[in-house]
Formats: sequence, C-alpha cells, structure tokens
Amino acid sequence: MTLKVYLSGEIHTDWRERIVEGAKGLDVAFESPVTDHAASDDCGVSILGEEPDKFWHDSKGAKLNAIRTRRGIEQADIVVVRFGDKYKQWNAAFDAGYAAALGKSLVVLHPQEHQHALKEVDAAAQAVAETPEQVVDILRYVLTGALPGRAGAAAE
Amino acid sequence: MTLKVYLSGEIHTDWRERIVEGAKGLDVAFESPVTDHAASDDCGVSILGEEPDKFWHDSKGAKLNAIRTRRGIEQADIVVVRFGDKYKQWNAAFDAGYAAALGKSLVVLHPQEHQHALKEVDAAAQAVAETPEQVVDILRYVLTGALPGRAGAAAE
Amino acid sequence: MTLKVYLSGEIHTDWRERIVEGAKGLDVAFESPVTDHAASDDCGVSILGEEPDKFWHDSKGAKLNAIRTRRGIEQADIVVVRFGDKYKQWNAAFDAGYAAALGKSLVVLHPQEHQHALKEVDAAAQAVAETPEQVVDILRYVLTGALPGRAGAAAE
Amino acid sequence: MTLKVYLSGEIHTDWRERIVEGAKGLDVAFESPVTDHAASDDCGVSILGEEPDKFWHDSKGAKLNAIRTRRGIEQADIVVVRFGDKYKQWNAAFDAGYAAALGKSLVVLHPQEHQHALKEVDAAAQAVAETPEQVVDILRYVLTGALPGRAGAAAE
Amino acid sequence: MTLKVYLSGEIHTDWRERIVEGAKGLDVAFESPVTDHAASDDCGVSILGEEPDKFWHDSKGAKLNAIRTRRGIEQADIVVVRFGDKYKQWNAAFDAGYAAALGKSLVVLHPQEHQHALKEVDAAAQAVAETPEQVVDILRYVLTGALPGRAGAAAE
Amino acid sequence: MTLKVYLSGEIHTDWRERIVEGAKGLDVAFESPVTDHAASDDCGVSILGEEPDKFWHDSKGAKLNAIRTRRGIEQADIVVVRFGDKYKQWNAAFDAGYAAALGKSLVVLHPQEHQHALKEVDAAAQAVAETPEQVVDILRYVLTGALPGRAGAAAE
Amino acid sequence: MTLKVYLSGEIHTDWRERIVEGAKGLDVAFESPVTDHAASDDCGVSILGEEPDKFWHDSKGAKLNAIRTRRGIEQADIVVVRFGDKYKQWNAAFDAGYAAALGKSLVVLHPQEHQHALKEVDAAAQAVAETPEQVVDILRYVLTGALPGRAGAAAE
Amino acid sequence: MTLKVYLSGEIHTDWRERIVEGAKGLDVAFESPVTDHAASDDCGVSILGEEPDKFWHDSKGAKLNAIRTRRGIEQADIVVVRFGDKYKQWNAAFDAGYAAALGKSLVVLHPQEHQHALKEVDAAAQAVAETPEQVVDILRYVLTGALPGRAGAAAE
Repeated sequence: MTLKVYLSGEIHTDWRERIVEGAKGLDVAFESPVTDHAASDDCGVSILGEEPDKFWHDSKGAKLNAIRTRRGIEQADIVVVRFGDKYKQWNAAFDAGYAAALGKSLVVLHPQEHQHALKEVDAAAQAVAETPEQVVDILRYVLTGALPGRAGAAAE
Repeated sequence: MTLKVYLSGEIHTDWRERIVEGAKGLDVAFESPVTDHAASDDCGVSILGEEPDKFWHDSKGAKLNAIRTRRGIEQADIVVVRFGDKYKQWNAAFDAGYAAALGKSLVVLHPQEHQHALKEVDAAAQAVAETPEQVVDILRYVLTGALPGRAGAAAE
Repeated sequence: MTLKVYLSGEIHTDWRERIVEGAKGLDVAFESPVTDHAASDDCGVSILGEEPDKFWHDSKGAKLNAIRTRRGIEQADIVVVRFGDKYKQWNAAFDAGYAAALGKSLVVLHPQEHQHALKEVDAAAQAVAETPEQVVDILRYVLTGALPGRAGAAAE
Repeated sequence: MTLKVYLSGEIHTDWRERIVEGAKGLDVAFESPVTDHAASDDCGVSILGEEPDKFWHDSKGAKLNAIRTRRGIEQADIVVVRFGDKYKQWNAAFDAGYAAALGKSLVVLHPQEHQHALKEVDAAAQAVAETPEQVVDILRYVLTGALPGRAGAAAE
Repeated sequence: MTLKVYLSGEIHTDWRERIVEGAKGLDVAFESPVTDHAASDDCGVSILGEEPDKFWHDSKGAKLNAIRTRRGIEQADIVVVRFGDKYKQWNAAFDAGYAAALGKSLVVLHPQEHQHALKEVDAAAQAVAETPEQVVDILRYVLTGALPGRAGAAAE
Repeated sequence: MTLKVYLSGEIHTDWRERIVEGAKGLDVAFESPVTDHAASDDCGVSILGEEPDKFWHDSKGAKLNAIRTRRGIEQADIVVVRFGDKYKQWNAAFDAGYAAALGKSLVVLHPQEHQHALKEVDAAAQAVAETPEQVVDILRYVLTGALPGRAGAAAE
Repeated sequence: MTLKVYLSGEIHTDWRERIVEGAKGLDVAFESPVTDHAASDDCGVSILGEEPDKFWHDSKGAKLNAIRTRRGIEQADIVVVRFGDKYKQWNAAFDAGYAAALGKSLVVLHPQEHQHALKEVDAAAQAVAETPEQVVDILRYVLTGALPGRAGAAAE
Repeated sequence: MTLKVYLSGEIHTDWRERIVEGAKGLDVAFESPVTDHAASDDCGVSILGEEPDKFWHDSKGAKLNAIRTRRGIEQADIVVVRFGDKYKQWNAAFDAGYAAALGKSLVVLHPQEHQHALKEVDAAAQAVAETPEQVVDILRYVLTGALPGRAGAAAE
C-alpha cells in the first residue's frame, strides 16, 4: 500500500525536492505544508479580510494553515520534520510533538549542531538523519527492504 | 488525496451550489444532508409508518437523517457549517459541536449580524467566513496554496 | 462514497437477498456472516482439528467466525440486525451491542411480536423496520434523499 | 460511584438551582458553565487585554469559557442541555452536539414550543424533559432505581 | 485498586446476591441495572409522561435504563453477564456485545443447556461459569491469587 | 473488500511463501517485515551511520524496522504470528501483544511443542494453527465461507 | 474536581513559582518537568550508565524525562507552555504540539517579541498570556468564574 | 499523583521484592501478575472444571490470568518487563508489545546477554536497565527529580 509521508518544517532549502526526487519509483505519496512563505503568512487576511493587529493577522493565517498541516500529519504513515539553520522553527517542533502524540513514525532531519537542543524531539523519533538522501534511503528500506549498496530482499 | 468536505446547515439559499460550482477543478468531494425540506421532515414516517404524535413523527425522521449527517461529518476533513437569516438552526450548531468534538477542521459561514450569538461556535472554528466564495478560496488554498489574485506556489 | 452495510442475524429466510436485490443500482457494498449453517458450526474443527468436547468444538468455530463478523461490523457505516421467528439469536443481539458500542448506525429488523423483548436493542437503533423493503428504502434515502413514491431531491 | 452531571445552556432562569436542590441527598456532582452573563462575555479581555474589534473581544472570551465547558462535558456521565425561551442559544446546541459525539448520555430540557426546531437534538438524547423536576427524577432513578411515587428497588 | 464489576442480565433469581455476598471482604465494587422489573419497564413514562403506543412506552424506558447500564459497563473492569432459564434475554446478549467491543473482560454465567446457543458470546469471554460461586472464585483469584482450597500466594 | 494480512515472526523457513502461494486467487493483500536477516540487523547503521556499541547498532536498526512492522500491524485485519523451532523470537511475541492491544484478529502458528510456553499468546488468538495450510484455509473461509473439502456457501 | 495543570517549558525564571503562589487557595494540582537543568541533562547516564557519544547521552536522558513529561501532559486538564528569552526551546514547542494533538486546553505564555515566531502555537491555544499573573487569573476564572477586580459569580 | 507501575515478566527471582522495597517512601502503587507458578498454571481448571486436553487446560488458565494482567497494564503509567535467564518468556514479550501499543512508558529489565535477542523490545522502551536498583532509581527520578548521589531538585 502506498506509503504516506508528510514533510514538515524548514521551507528555505531544497530538502523536500531532494527527497521527492530521490524517492522516484517508490510507492510513496508526499504531502507538505504550503511552502510559499508569503502566501503562508498572509493567507488568512487575504481570504477573510484584513486585520490591523499583527497578532490576529497571524492567527487567521495560522489557523488556515493548520487545516492543511493537521490533515497532512493525521493521514501520514511517516512524518519527516526538518530543522534548518535559521529561525526559531517552533512550528516544526510543534508538528513533531503533534505527530508523536498521534503515534506516527517520526523521522527528524537536522544538522549536527542542533543535536543537544533537539534531544527531546530526537528521542521521540524512529530515526534521526542529517541528509535528505538518508531519508530517501529510509523510505526505500521501509518499502522494499533494500539498503544502499545492497539488493533489496523483500519487495513490498 | 481528495479533500472531503461536508456542507452542513441552512437549506434555503444557494450557498452549497455556489461552493460546489466555485470548487470545480479542485480535488474536493462534497457531502451534505438531504436538503429537500419536506423529505427531510417526513422521511421517518414515510418509510417506517405514520405516527399520530408530532414528537415521534419528528424523532423517526431525525434519527434517519442522522445516519447520513453523522457519516458525512465523520468522514469529512473539513466541516462547513452555514447559519442563515431564518429559523433556529439548532441542528447546524449541533453539527458544529459534533464536528468539533471529533477534531474536524470547522469552517463557519454566517452573516455579520450573528457574530455575537455564534461566538462559541466561531471560537471553535479554523475560519469564519461571510460568503461562499471565501469558503471556495479556503478550499483552494488548503489544496493548492493558491491565494485570490496570486498564483499558487504549492501544488498538492 | 460507497455506503458499507453489514447484514447481521437470522440466516434461515431470504431477507438478505431481498435487501441486496432491492438495493441494486445504489452505491452500497454489503457484507454478511457466513450463512451456511453447517459450515459456520463446523469451521473451527474442520480446519484446526476435531474436538471431543462440544464446548470447544463450538468455541473454535465461533472464534473463526468472529474474525469475519467483527471486521464486517467495524468497517460498516450501517449495521442491520435481523431477528427472525426462531432460535435464541443471542449472536444477533451480541452483534447489535457490539455495533452500538462502536457508534455504528444500527437498523433493527424484526417482526412486531418481538417488540417488547427487543426494546433495549431497538432503543439503541436509528431505525426499527419490519420488512427488508423498508431497509432498502432507508438505504436509498440515506444515499439519494429519495423517498418511496417521491422523486429524490438530493443526489449523493 | 458519584454521578457526574454537566448542566449546559440557558442562564436566565433558576433551572440549575431547582435541579441541584432537588437532587440533594443523591450522590451527584454538578458542573456548569460560568453563569454570570457579564463575566462570561468579558472574561477574555478582562484578563488578557482589551480588543477594539468585537469579534476578537468575543473570541478571546469564548475560548477561555471553552476551557471550562469542554472539561465539564468531557468529565460528565450525563450532560443536561436546557433551551429556554429567548436568544439563539447556539452554544447550547453546540454543547449538545459535542456531548453526543463523545458518546455522553444527553438529556434535553425545553418547553414544548421548541419541539420541532429541536428534533435533531432530541433525537440524539436519552431523554427529553420539560421541567427541572423531571431531570431530578431521572437522576434519582439512574442512581437508585426509585420512581416518583414508588419506593426505589435497587439502591446503588 | 478496587475491582469494578458490572452484573448484567437475568433479574429473576438471586445470582447477584450470591456473588455480592460471596465477595465480601474482597476489594470489589459492584454495579448493576435496575432489577425491579416493573420500575425498569415503566420508568420512561412514569417520569416523562404516558405513551399510548407500547413501542414508545418501551423506548422511553429503555433509553433511560441505558444511561445506567452503559455507564456501568463503561466504568467496569469486568462485566459478568448472566443468562437464565427464561425469556429472550436479548438485552443481556446486547450488553455482552457492548462490553466486548469496549475491550472489557467478559465473564459469562449460564446453565449448560444454553451452551450451543451462546457459543458466540462464550467465545468472546475470558471465562464461562455455571454458578455464581465460580464467579466469586474468579474475582478472588484476580484480586488475590488465591484458589479454592489453596492459600493465595499473591496479595494485591 | 481486500483482506489485509500481516505475517509476523520466524524468517528462516518458507511458511510465508506457502501461505501466499496457497492464497492465490483470494482477495488478500499480504505485508510482512523485512525478512533478509542481515539487512534487518544492519539497516540502521547502514543508512544512518556506524555505531561502535552493539546496543545502539541494534537500537538504530530495530527502530527503523519498527516503522514497517507497526504500520503493517496497524493496517492489518488479521495478524498471523509464526513461532519456529529456533531462537528466542521475542519480537514475534511482542508483535502478538501489540496486535492484541489494537484489537486485531490474531492467528498464531507454531509447532505443538511450544504449546505450554505460548499459552498466553494462544489465549489471545482467534485461532491457533500448526501448518501454513491451515492459515490458508482460515483466510479462504473468512473471505468465502468455503471449507476444505466442501464448496463455499457464502461468496464475499 | 481538582483542576490538573501541567507547566511546561522554560526553566530559568521563576514563572512556575509565581503561578503556584498566585493560585494558592484554588483547587489546582500542578505538575511540571524536572526543572534542575543538570539533573535533567544527566539523568539517563547517571542511572543507566555512561555513554561516550553525546547523542546517546542525551537520548538516554530525554527518554527518561519523557516518562514524566508525557504523563504530566496526558493527565492534565490544562497545559501551560512558557517560552522565555533564551535558547531554542524546541522541547516546549514539542510539548505544545503533543498537548494539542491530545485535545488538551493549551495556554501559551511568552513575551510579545516571540509573537510572530509562535503564531502556529498560539493559534492552537485557548489563551495567549504575557505574564504568569494572567495565567493565575485564567485558572481562577475557569474554576470560580471570578474576574480580576470583580467578585466571582459561579463557585465551582 | 500516585505513580502506577506494573511489574511484568519473570517470576523466579526476587526482582519484584527488590523494587518494591527500594521504592519505599515513594508515592508508587505496584501491580503484578499472580506470581505463584502453580496457581497461575492451574487457576482455570481449578475454578471452572478440569480439562483432559492440555491445550484447553492452559487456555482456561491463561484467559483468567489475562483479566488481571491486562487490567494491570491498562491502568499503569509505567510497565516494567523483566526477562530472566530461563524459559521462553514469551508472555513477557507479549506484555511489552501490549504496553507499547497502548502508549505506556515501557522499562525493560534484562541481563546483558539477552541484548541482541531483545533489540525490538528495547527499542520500544523508554529505558533499558540491568538491575532492579536502576528501576528504583528511575521511579525516584520520575517522581522527585532526585538522582543517585545527588539531592532531588524537583519534589513532585
């Protein structure tokens, strides 16, 4: 059965594209948040009307985005959460906690330097990766039993 | 994956048609209650036998209708609840509460004048809209990341 | 979406056939228990080996049948439970309780004479019918909004 | 074990007091929303800061009140929902839907004149009463088996 | 921790008393339905008003009784269901199915003669007993590890 | 609807092949763990980097494998767990417990000699088989009602 | 009933003490993580043995701490999450997501400057506060209906 | 709040006593299976009647014991599973899987030699200990924040 994977977190590098590209040929369906930063920030007021107060501007947008992100997490078999180099990225950690509470398989993707700060998130994960290519290897292994440099032994 | 949307509430204006029409081309599947008022009122006794007492006449019908409405809400990703100008519309508010308790994404659609009376319902919602076209914009954004007057950045 | 209906209970009359036949053309998928009485009674020992003690003979069979019946109920939108004229039919009432606890829409089908004895089961149901044709009418109404002798107003 | 009862809905008559008073001596613990209308309306801005926009004024308050009301419903064995003569009372119907979705035993209390408009809510209830005294009788019967004018036969 | 036991089913013999009496000194809390047959039949109309139609007379009562029975089952660790010599006892089988679907430990108590007719219910049970004294032995063993004629080895 | 079956446990004999082969023509979808012993042991370090400590070597691999095994169990209608002649096979028993807690239909497959040691696992199962062919017979019966040596009476 | 409150997040200021102190006299039971930074970091290796690799040192500790934090969140009625001025605080956001997925009432406490970065977390909350005293006011209102500067109208 | 701990697994050494003794003074409530081997094996037939077939002898007993063990696991905050030197101990691994599926905090206790064979069980655990004293340290830390050789910083 198609493996459903939600790609949460950082939106400023090409990690999603590298995973999607690397997983070509595997029976995986990817979902992700809206990754257009401006659209994601302004969607609430753009559709439902302007707010003079930044708090409500943001709240309206965040609530709309949550329709998509929660559905993506709830329907996923695996939730991959990427922490990048910049920003607070509290929404990524929030998604990780949300996924963990639902019993989803969590894969965390982050550079070595965040290791200590992410220890609680990592400890809730099935795997902690440093590169998108490792995530692709995980998806391939989970579906086919194939490891890098070896032939897969168990076709799905 | 197809977005499942349940359209609950008012049955006397064309708001459902405007949403369904506006969402053409989007990967959305709509469900709704039986919107033929007379059929909805009389379905119980029509199928299962007359009742002299109005209470049981109504109870038989409401229980049959609940088979459809609960299934519609339980299978939905998003529940849109419309409050119109007339009638008590307690069934609409009941559906909203039912959807909220199940953790569904709730979108409320009502004219400005009902704002105060609907504050508890609105507070449970991911979005509060005034027009069916805003609901269409929400569905489009959730699925594609496209905002009104902007090109979508994240195809589903 | 296809309406999933499980037909539980009595296996000695043609009520299932009448419902399946009557629902032709509707988007309904039916499931039911194994209705071959002898196979149902003997399946356990037939596959897993004879038992000298009648209790274990029956237990082995009932446990195998439960794989099918519980799956049928758990996957159903509507569980129809038929009580006929003969036998204790405790398995039918058990299925009704099982379905009720899972929050399934329950439709009970029984002759008038069992009304008092079935009052707890009927009270947990969305509808109590006396004929298979009424069950067909319910399925049609739930899916299409059409009532007997009227044109349907709300296509699914 | 103590019967937990949540009293939702109308806040302008003494129905809660009549139930609490009538249930004296029974092992019942009552919870209810904040029934001070002004406090309930203004709690959000009073604690968290003023809002120039009425929508957000109301939203802040409704969200705070929801902490109490949802906890009350979620912990209850029985949810009593009262519909009075005035106002839209959509929050009462919302609570009823919320309780129904959680599988709570629902008791609806309303004057005869609302019967048709409340048919969906009534159809989800275990009992529909017209007076607070009937609700007391229900609580007494559920706990002790005693009926009005008869001695109870089954002490809890 | 106190073992919570719900005693469902037959109300015309003294099996409940024998279990409660036999379990004296054990940390068990028993619940049961209202066992006054007349009160149980008439509770609905007695509190909520007469019904000329027997079906609704019974429905009103069964719905009130369900408040107590479902709470009893939902809060129990063990649900004991007794089938006696007389009547259809479909409510007992309904309770057994309800308990099984909730994952409760089910103990069935019935005379040998009902063995075949109850095979589906028995197959869902953790134990099938013929006498109330056996049920007492089960409760004692579950709590203390003591068996009939042996000293208990594991105090709770 | 397609019957989903997860084949857990022993990976050193051809029992899976015999079941899959025997079930040809039946509407069954099989899932299983990665059965390449070396890949299964080394997947973690192979993808995510070497570990000098055997404990973490194994932990990394077991966590990756759990992504596949838990998904397989959670999506299954029936979980078949095979205990063979060798090794501790604690992962098989762990899977059985995992499946039981989720309410899955459990079928245990083991040689007679393990009977006493597996009594708790067997007692949680719907069926205990000794040969893969018996498992095939179970799947056929559950889907079609056909027994070995008899024509099926209830097509799915 | 005692209100159960879990205090998650920042451990370097006295916000917990101010809330606990302010809530004196209210029927609230507080839980929190281990707030001794050194103990929290080293608990895993201190009890279960040293790890040369920092990743596993941290993992062992984070997994132990999760026993306490998840229990605290799962048993809470209200989860308060505090974001302070320093550090990444991803564990705080993880806890907020975990609480949101379980349907807990979430109260977020943070300085104004984090508003935009916390918009997704805030949008999932029932209240967003800036001071511990506001949290105390919320707890008092939820329990008693009393607002700052007004007498409470609804004792619990 | 009292920490509830279930002690599953090996019954031939004094590990339970050492944990219970070591935890004196902590707010912990322990539960465990019946640890009298003979009583545990024979409880079914001792109470419910002899069985000539060993399989049913064992099945009757295992089903009775499951009433106690499942309740113990379901009510626990922490499930400790001990694997000793002897026997297959599949019931211990079954309990571990059962606990994991319910989201319980799992602590595994086993000698070093079983490390590889228990890797799937260990990978599902929050902690892997080798001595009962380490388990006591974990319980103390979870409740009080105190570590061995340090003063506790966070009283519960």
